[in-house]
Amino acid sequence: MKTSVYRKSRFNSAHRLHNPALSDLENEMIFGKCNRPNFHGHNYELIVKVTGEIDPISGYVVDMKVLADLIKEHIEEKFDHRNLNLDTEEFKTLNPTAENIARVIYDILRTKIDAKFDLGIRLYETERNFVEYPG
Amino acid sequence: MKTSVYRKSRFNSAHRLHNPALSDLENEMIFGKCNRPNFHGHNYELIVKVTGEIDPISGYVVDMKVLADLIKEHIEEKFDHRNLNLDTEEFKTLNPTAENIARVIYDILRTKIDAKFDLGIRLYETERNFVEYPG
Amino acid sequence: MKTSVYRKSRFNSAHRLHNPALSDLENEMIFGKCNRPNFHGHNYELIVKVTGEIDPISGYVVDMKVLADLIKEHIEEKFDHRNLNLDTEEFKTLNPTAENIARVIYDILRTKIDAKFDLGIRLYETERNFVEYPG
Amino acid sequence: MKTSVYRKSRFNSAHRLHNPALSDLENEMIFGKCNRPNFHGHNYELIVKVTGEIDPISGYVVDMKVLADLIKEHIEEKFDHRNLNLDTEEFKTLNPTAENIARVIYDILRTKIDAKFDLGIRLYETERNFVEYPG
Amino acid sequence: MKTSVYRKSRFNSAHRLHNPALSDLENEMIFGKCNRPNFHGHNYELIVKVTGEIDPISGYVVDMKVLADLIKEHIEEKFDHRNLNLDTEEFKTLNPTAENIARVIYDILRTKIDAKFDLGIRLYETERNFVEYPG
Amino acid sequence: MKTSVYRKSRFNSAHRLHNPALSDLENEMIFGKCNRPNFHGHNYELIVKVTGEIDPISGYVVDMKVLADLIKEHIEEKFDHRNLNLDTEEFKTLNPTAENIARVIYDILRTKIDAKFDLGIRLYETERNFVEYPG
Repeated sequence: MKTSVYRKSRFNSAHRLHNPALSDLENEMIFGKCNRPNFHGHNYELIVKVTGEIDPISGYVVDMKVLADLIKEHIEEKFDHRNLNLDTEEFKTLNPTAENIARVIYDILRTKIDAKFDLGIRLYETERNFVEYPG
Repeated sequence: MKTSVYRKSRFNSAHRLHNPALSDLENEMIFGKCNRPNFHGHNYELIVKVTGEIDPISGYVVDMKVLADLIKEHIEEKFDHRNLNLDTEEFKTLNPTAENIARVIYDILRTKIDAKFDLGIRLYETERNFVEYPG
Repeated sequence: MKTSVYRKSRFNSAHRLHNPALSDLENEMIFGKCNRPNFHGHNYELIVKVTGEIDPISGYVVDMKVLADLIKEHIEEKFDHRNLNLDTEEFKTLNPTAENIARVIYDILRTKIDAKFDLGIRLYETERNFVEYPG
Repeated sequence: MKTSVYRKSRFNSAHRLHNPALSDLENEMIFGKCNRPNFHGHNYELIVKVTGEIDPISGYVVDMKVLADLIKEHIEEKFDHRNLNLDTEEFKTLNPTAENIARVIYDILRTKIDAKFDLGIRLYETERNFVEYPG
Repeated sequence: MKTSVYRKSRFNSAHRLHNPALSDLENEMIFGKCNRPNFHGHNYELIVKVTGEIDPISGYVVDMKVLADLIKEHIEEKFDHRNLNLDTEEFKTLNPTAENIARVIYDILRTKIDAKFDLGIRLYETERNFVEYPG
Repeated sequence: MKTSVYRKSRFNSAHRLHNPALSDLENEMIFGKCNRPNFHGHNYELIVKVTGEIDPISGYVVDMKVLADLIKEHIEEKFDHRNLNLDTEEFKTLNPTAENIARVIYDILRTKIDAKFDLGIRLYETERNFVEYPG
């Protein structure tokens, strides 16, 4: 049986929910106060899950320090203290809902983590609203 | 791959564990202090999980505001600041264990949420005891 | 300078807010859903604070094990898995608001803890509503 | 002795730290990544403390429902899902540090809460950085 | 569909990460500060998950009190306030990584819990690093 | 009125409670399982409170980044992933109770932080046991 390891991380970002393919009125009707033009923001909490076999030499699935550094370099550096809509390539046209942010984080980390490991992303936008990909 | 969204909610209720088909002595032996006649209570914490595809227009699996309103209308209004044994139809004869409460909440919400979505319920009775349905 | 030690504890109780000196209508107007006749309940979280000098032999202000046992014997045994209004002497006529519960706990523990120590009570009724006595 | 009651609330806002009286270089040197031009954001967590005597009729210091509504009307409506720098009068020229936000919230609520009560504000910008006014 | 019940527990232990089959230099290179010779320690948080059918008489999957007692007797008594490397048979030669501790706990509890139930272990070494077995 | 800022930090250490001036039997009677010879350990959680005036230029009481670096350099580097009894000068002869650790941290940081600021230390040994100095 496999073992999963989890690493929690954080980034603080501004965003607004907005689909540029919709009219302003449609955006407001769908996204309400999350669509307000000058942005709001969140303390995002990210949990990265890596599933695989325990290495018999180290007793690790993966080295948590290495995993933490990967997350820091490829996710925190990109999103922390940034405006997701304005400052990132990923959300120039993609609406930064929690669902889409989780999927984007998955796609980034998937290329950095050996394919023999399964990968899962949980992202808390607030304490009460969170998402998981794959679900 | 699908995405899951989670919404956390709360309700504060009185209850006692009691199976009316058993004798008082059997109830006391099985349920101990949870069977005391004048009830005790909990701050129940509910996490509803909905799994499906991300809608390409909204970037949502489901609108969290709509999900929160469903939970408020069909779960919180029914259970919050109520005595589960005395004030609800559901637990007139069904013993309100955390397991049964989770199953009842699942059954209620399953009829309100489109069948194309998977549904999961996690219910915390206390910080240290919680249940999940389906498990 | 003195040092404070804190011990966290829990009890799960049913209660309703009700002042028997008021009419039913007045009770309902003041206490709303907290006045419902069949009770609701909470996971109360109690933090007891004891302030004094560090004993040079033990390095303790007070032995946390002794403090925990005091709380267990005099507070948890009395209130846990009980109906505050029906099962306790203290709230037969006193309305079991968080404020009054905290004051009652203070009065009980004050007689059990050496007068050379200051005593403080924090009581969480929910994660969002809590009280402190003395304030 | 008096009793304190506490009410926790939340608002999600964008902001940047910026003192318009300073040069861009000075702002960047003092505030680092918090000064980035396109804003970032936080899930602010607010705890309002009100200290006074317990009313013998209600058993309340203040009605938590009334306090929660005050916070909702005067703080959440103003700051939640807003850009503090762009969308609020208070921070048009005042730098929205956690310290200043707490002081502004204090000043707003102080005029809404009877002077016989003491008032205190705790504001969490993140789980690891928080402030209190008065301190 | 089955239901899962979860029970949270805690134990506070000293440990160091060290594989006696490796040289001191290799141990230091792989495990860094976790390999320091005089040990460090953690407040481990354990969540045991048991999955099965709800018993129609009790409304329980398993009696949480019985489950809590099992965990206390077979896990807490063994690991709490102990040095995992020096005081336990299990980690005399096995490196006490979170992954290995979770697997050891699984193996112990698997023999104590009826085979008709599925068993899962989640172990928090810190708030930010945790593991799950099976994963 | 002054403002307080708080910074939360963590360190994971091994320790045992032991007063070398007492006999082994006395140590065991006073400290119980905390006295076991091979150490146990904790995820200590430290909250440092600094109270003073808000600087009108920065809007800060103190720069949280500077405060965090001070804590990292003088507290975390010294105590994290260490055995308090064996690896630190401070607890060679002083019993590392939570009370004494908090006082030692206060004494270290007091020399690093401008005397115009008040300083307070809160230290969590576990979620349920914590201390404050000054109290």
